[in-house]
Amino acid sequence: MKLKIPNEEIRERQKKFTDNLKEMNVESVILFNTTDIFYLTNFMFRPSERPIAFFIDDSNKTHLFVPRMEYSHAENYAVIDYIHEYIEYPGETHPMEILKMYLIEYKFTEKTVGYDSLGYSSQKGYKGPLLTEIMDFKDIVNIKGMVEKQRYIKSNNEIELIKESARWGNLAHTLLVEYSEIGKREMEIEGRASFEASQIIYKTLGADYKPYGNPPHAFYRGQIGKHSFFPHSQNQNAMLKKGFNVVSQAACDVWGYKSELERTMFIGEASKEQEKYFNHMLQAQEIAFDSIKPGIEASVIEKNVQRYFKENNLEPLVRHHTGHNIGLLNHEAPFFDIGDDTLLEPGMIFSVEPGLYVEDIGAFRHSDTILITETGMELITYYPRDFESLII
Amino acid sequence: MKLKIPNEEIRERQKKFTDNLKEMNVESVILFNTTDIFYLTNFMFRPSERPIAFFIDDSNKTHLFVPRMEYSHAENYAVIDYIHEYIEYPGETHPMEILKMYLIEYKFTEKTVGYDSLGYSSQKGYKGPLLTEIMDFKDIVNIKGMVEKQRYIKSNNEIELIKESARWGNLAHTLLVEYSEIGKREMEIEGRASFEASQIIYKTLGADYKPYGNPPHAFYRGQIGKHSFFPHSQNQNAMLKKGFNVVSQAACDVWGYKSELERTMFIGEASKEQEKYFNHMLQAQEIAFDSIKPGIEASVIEKNVQRYFKENNLEPLVRHHTGHNIGLLNHEAPFFDIGDDTLLEPGMIFSVEPGLYVEDIGAFRHSDTILITETGMELITYYPRDFESLII
Repeated sequence: MKLKIPNEEIRERQKKFTDNLKEMNVESVILFNTTDIFYLTNFMFRPSERPIAFFIDDSNKTHLFVPRMEYSHAENYAVIDYIHEYIEYPGETHPMEILKMYLIEYKFTEKTVGYDSLGYSSQKGYKGPLLTEIMDFKDIVNIKGMVEKQRYIKSNNEIELIKESARWGNLAHTLLVEYSEIGKREMEIEGRASFEASQIIYKTLGADYKPYGNPPHAFYRGQIGKHSFFPHSQNQNAMLKKGFNVVSQAACDVWGYKSELERTMFIGEASKEQEKYFNHMLQAQEIAFDSIKPGIEASVIEKNVQRYFKENNLEPLVRHHTGHNIGLLNHEAPFFDIGDDTLLEPGMIFSVEPGLYVEDIGAFRHSDTILITETGMELITYYPRDFESLII
Repeated sequence: MKLKIPNEEIRERQKKFTDNLKEMNVESVILFNTTDIFYLTNFMFRPSERPIAFFIDDSNKTHLFVPRMEYSHAENYAVIDYIHEYIEYPGETHPMEILKMYLIEYKFTEKTVGYDSLGYSSQKGYKGPLLTEIMDFKDIVNIKGMVEKQRYIKSNNEIELIKESARWGNLAHTLLVEYSEIGKREMEIEGRASFEASQIIYKTLGADYKPYGNPPHAFYRGQIGKHSFFPHSQNQNAMLKKGFNVVSQAACDVWGYKSELERTMFIGEASKEQEKYFNHMLQAQEIAFDSIKPGIEASVIEKNVQRYFKENNLEPLVRHHTGHNIGLLNHEAPFFDIGDDTLLEPGMIFSVEPGLYVEDIGAFRHSDTILITETGMELITYYPRDFESLII
């Protein structure tokens, strides 16, 4: 198996996207979202001060607009009909003025044009005009979120890449557990586990493996002992002590695709109180698993989990919703959230991670990656979830 | 020395920012830029689907608006007067509606309000209304770029953090070179170097060291052999072979502050042609160094470098400008670019990295981090730059 999205699938994505646009009577389109651009072209770009854009003209030809430094790179890697370059940002002529020239050449002024944003945006020193400030269009239509929606449902190739990601995340996690000993510090444990898992993936998969992101890694990001009370912490290089709660995370990019595996674990031993919260968390995750099936709203899963927490007077310990979609980004819409009425469909991939946060004890959260099937769901991550296995 | 920005300096930053706002008759302000929010509060946040905002009311009180999962974290780490939370995104009530409520409470509707953006933006599944679509203000003023401008000139504490970053980048780079042997592959070399440098920094600096980013790391990102022709490549896990050009990069975050060190090196031996291009690149970097001083436009540096390239018929081999500001992001404005007329000032920190790209041979680019002084510049990175030292 080639660990990539084949070029033909990229062409199918482009076709599906343009078909959807035609149905909305949008004749041409321009996008600046870098994730969507990778999804539609297989071209991975390191965003910086230099704008990049993707556009499709009214005869369905696809175009990339890139800085000169990326021209040959795009030529070799992108699934695209035409590549246009500008010299540099800010440059003598602003890149948006060059882009305008190309858009005029391809008759965007005379068309109904879809856009996800009216200009490039980046925190890395970029500034520039909106397209509508420098040129006219027959009509423009905001289609933000349309490619993201297309990305909700994963193809078989995407599902295979995410399953591959989960296997290597599992290795990194297993090594993390192996090196997690009393008296050892966070950065040594996760550094060793991540380094070794990365070595092994390259030796195993060889040249076929392109992460387009990070090779296998596992870490605690500061969720050690009481500090795990902060759900998304920063690394503290904390030392593991007997009886500590810890929450791990393991991940691995495969052609940009991600999975998520997190475990609540106890160093050496756990108190009755820790076991109690652990069991509630596990029960909540089971309730989520049992609720997931196609045809219902994403919010149903969250409601069922919250009902359980409420019945057990655990509501004050909740800090976040139950899960999020995952794919090319580690968090994507839709969400297992009370406010998300998206209908679940086969092929969607979610994290399932209801959590409890207890001051002076810490966090209780597993996260598993699941695939929605025709009849329910399939677990993609498979590291043991039970209490006994997680006293390490 | 504490490896952090002291809280008093954060308060001074807030004061300077509000003083600048008052001069523009802006009474209150709201920001969504996560880098600027860290700069003004010391609060490091992992951006996701969940919006975060920072605002200052007309009595100069500072406010953070965060999801519930970050409330305690912010309480413990942020330099701020008030923290307000919303439950979750998307939630039953959209977070922007909750934010609106707080802005009304602090009389934003009656004020001239500065903003950097009219809403939160993130590729991670967020969507929401613009502030102006859900509420009115007496007047609003776009102040995008104002905090970024404040960040141009580094304080002594910031300069010390960047120098600390450069020292550890140098260690990672030294280890990268040590492990770069013929027959070894990219990921093993950089994995070992980065892992070991990370271990050493924690053992050396102890609990004072908070990266707020990545601990020391050094890598090739695919710039090995002919593939280095692509200026910003992706890792290829390529094997080092005799006579290859390589371009390294080493970096290290210290309290979020960065430095940049890159070297063109040759595996085992270099041809006369490789030496020729190397010397031109080195000469161009020297020209840049000699040109840098306060009081001139940033574009002057680029013009001097480009003149040298033109005189030597090397113009077709150029792919990017000579450098960029660096600080909390790896690329920031201003730029050593033909189109950047920013006046250089003491305290600015830039990369200096003119490059040449030769098809079928590869890249020639050093990058050094420099500080602009009262009279010229000071090199912050110090790894050897000469040809002899870089045949490894």
